[in-house]
Amino acid sequence: MDNEAAIRELVADRTTAMRTGDAEAICRPYTSDAVVFSLAPPLVQPPDGNRDVAQMRAWFEEKGGSVWSEVRDLHVTVDGDLALCTSLESMGAPPSSPQPFTLWYRSTLGLRRLDGEWRIVHEHTSTPFHMDGSFRAATDLQP
Amino acid sequence: MDNEAAIRELVADRTTAMRTGDAEAICRPYTSDAVVFSLAPPLVQPPDGNRDVAQMRAWFEEKGGSVWSEVRDLHVTVDGDLALCTSLESMGAPPSSPQPFTLWYRSTLGLRRLDGEWRIVHEHTSTPFHMDGSFRAATDLQP
Repeated sequence: MDNEAAIRELVADRTTAMRTGDAEAICRPYTSDAVVFSLAPPLVQPPDGNRDVAQMRAWFEEKGGSVWSEVRDLHVTVDGDLALCTSLESMGAPPSSPQPFTLWYRSTLGLRRLDGEWRIVHEHTSTPFHMDGSFRAATDLQP
Repeated sequence: MDNEAAIRELVADRTTAMRTGDAEAICRPYTSDAVVFSLAPPLVQPPDGNRDVAQMRAWFEEKGGSVWSEVRDLHVTVDGDLALCTSLESMGAPPSSPQPFTLWYRSTLGLRRLDGEWRIVHEHTSTPFHMDGSFRAATDLQP
């Protein structure tokens, strides 16, 4: 399998893990020194914050066990052992869940191949915010 | 100059361009097909949106001609002709400006070396948002 195919598979596996509530699969690819900029504060996640399986499991529980996930407009650029992925992603929990929601956001992944395996060294997920003085996160946008 | 030094210089030049209101210098490094996720909506900027010098110049004018800019915790990873930069950035306009503000945000840059020159193929800037039900952008965070 070539590099781009391997990376697209990693992204697809993450989507499956969201849909099935597989906390271990979500956490596994992050390196211990990954720089993670999440949808939620703080500006930068604490070290190993995204490798905390118990925390990820608790998050899934809050949402009813799993969430809907979809990836669109995935661009993959690879050179040597470094790769950059950009995409638009949606996430949601159905009205029947304890915390129903739906959201489109932007996703950037930085990957490095370490010991032959592609790992997440950087993740940046966000919504923009309205610059009309309200400072509301633009959680209502569609691609 | 090695690759990392050249990239750090590109980032430093952008900071200088923000502080001096140099719209052309800000716009120059973007490739025509750069994928840009900005602080403001929409989810993805329109093609060539970040290469529009007139628009950038108008934005500087609104802010009084230039803005304060600072980059912290810059990490640069390079392999071949691809590079990934992550940092925390602040931007601000002094109380004397027409639109005073100050803001810390997260910044990701994806760079490719094309014809010997490092160019911006991806930019992602954002703040997180408060998940307390308010959906307010977290524009008040400090690193």
